[in-house]
Amino acid sequence: MFNDADLTDDKFLCGRLRLLQPARGYRAATDAVLLAAACPAEPGDTVLDLGCGAGAASLCLAARVPDLVLTGLEMQPDYADLARRNAARNGMAMEVVEGDVAQVPPALRRPFSQVIANPPWYPPGGTPSPRPGRATALQVTLPLSVWVQAAAQRLHPGGWLTLIAGADSLPDLLAALAPKLGSAAVLPLQPREGRAAPRILLRARKGGKAPFRLLPPLILHTGPAHDGDRESYTPQANAILRDGAPLLTAFH
Amino acid sequence: MFNDADLTDDKFLCGRLRLLQPARGYRAATDAVLLAAACPAEPGDTVLDLGCGAGAASLCLAARVPDLVLTGLEMQPDYADLARRNAARNGMAMEVVEGDVAQVPPALRRPFSQVIANPPWYPPGGTPSPRPGRATALQVTLPLSVWVQAAAQRLHPGGWLTLIAGADSLPDLLAALAPKLGSAAVLPLQPREGRAAPRILLRARKGGKAPFRLLPPLILHTGPAHDGDRESYTPQANAILRDGAPLLTAFH
Repeated sequence: MFNDADLTDDKFLCGRLRLLQPARGYRAATDAVLLAAACPAEPGDTVLDLGCGAGAASLCLAARVPDLVLTGLEMQPDYADLARRNAARNGMAMEVVEGDVAQVPPALRRPFSQVIANPPWYPPGGTPSPRPGRATALQVTLPLSVWVQAAAQRLHPGGWLTLIAGADSLPDLLAALAPKLGSAAVLPLQPREGRAAPRILLRARKGGKAPFRLLPPLILHTGPAHDGDRESYTPQANAILRDGAPLLTAFH
Repeated sequence: MFNDADLTDDKFLCGRLRLLQPARGYRAATDAVLLAAACPAEPGDTVLDLGCGAGAASLCLAARVPDLVLTGLEMQPDYADLARRNAARNGMAMEVVEGDVAQVPPALRRPFSQVIANPPWYPPGGTPSPRPGRATALQVTLPLSVWVQAAAQRLHPGGWLTLIAGADSLPDLLAALAPKLGSAAVLPLQPREGRAAPRILLRARKGGKAPFRLLPPLILHTGPAHDGDRESYTPQANAILRDGAPLLTAFH
């Protein structure tokens, strides 16, 4: 388990959520918030968070949508423990099961309305971080097809997979959807106007038959380059990352 | 062959190119110009235009890049004839071979530096046009994987495929690239700001090993909706469609 001295207490969604995270190791950031914003969960839905880490995405989602039944699957016991603590600290209920996405534990072999996933990722050409939690997460580096297949198996008909991943993995991701998942849509996440999207949000529906759609990008930052510590989010990114606005109409 | 009375004489690239096209039937438009703009051909390159129609894409490309060796493959004899006439009328050399993309004729079984393709397409949910040329083109509806495979076979190592297609076909296209084509990049073509991209430009390289990239979209029109007959191209689209500017830096 993490030592409390090695944890930081971070505000998400303008402080509506507070998350304990390891000072070193894998730390949730904007990706988890964007993932939660893109999940079309409705009150009462059951949500499975594959590789939930410290619980950031699930808890951000629960901060927006009431009455969700949250379940996380996490391979690393220290992160699973942190997710449980984070849920309790924010007054939210979340069951966290320790186990492997490649072999979903029997306790989770039931259908869910929503599956969300933020698989470990580092930029093409990048090297794994030397930080321990991050390195462990990266060393597993399950193929994304395994994540997609786990989601396809755990969704009930009509349920949605929402996933955030590197744009470089789009060919692998799309190839893994058929035959169970369809009606896929990809939302490119561009750091700035005119820049290639290093990350994408993907949504796909169990049994969906609608054609694939390539959506207009979400531009995260204003201006041509990072301006020191100045706040530079676009209004749309700001609404999502600070005010907890959903990213749902972008998929319509 | 087409009857001259059934042809129109259309200006492309502000009149630098004039193309005879059937008044009814498949007619080249912005797609062919965008395809040519995205092809990274260098002077001296050999170019194979799969399904060349009346030759619009190849001839637009030759209007920008000198000393190309142009070859077209076209299934419909009347369009092949038109492509030959269009090349001659514009003072360009273009060999046009009649045959099927699914079974490239022996005469074309040699390596090319560039392959370009604008396969027949209609929007998801749309119905084939009743116009004869268009309908014939659509009735063949070869799977896009066949086009990609023909390109992969005809490219020499390091050569590029440049293709324009419906965004709905992206999963099929990406799945067809491996193992011969890599370093793929997709440029979404958005009709307007904030709209999903119905069309994409795809580039992939024979033997390429670079990660897949999702590029920022090219926005074609200004404003939120079509404004009657008013010219509404964005400056970037205008530079490509009227001035014949290349669309190459977008892929860097």
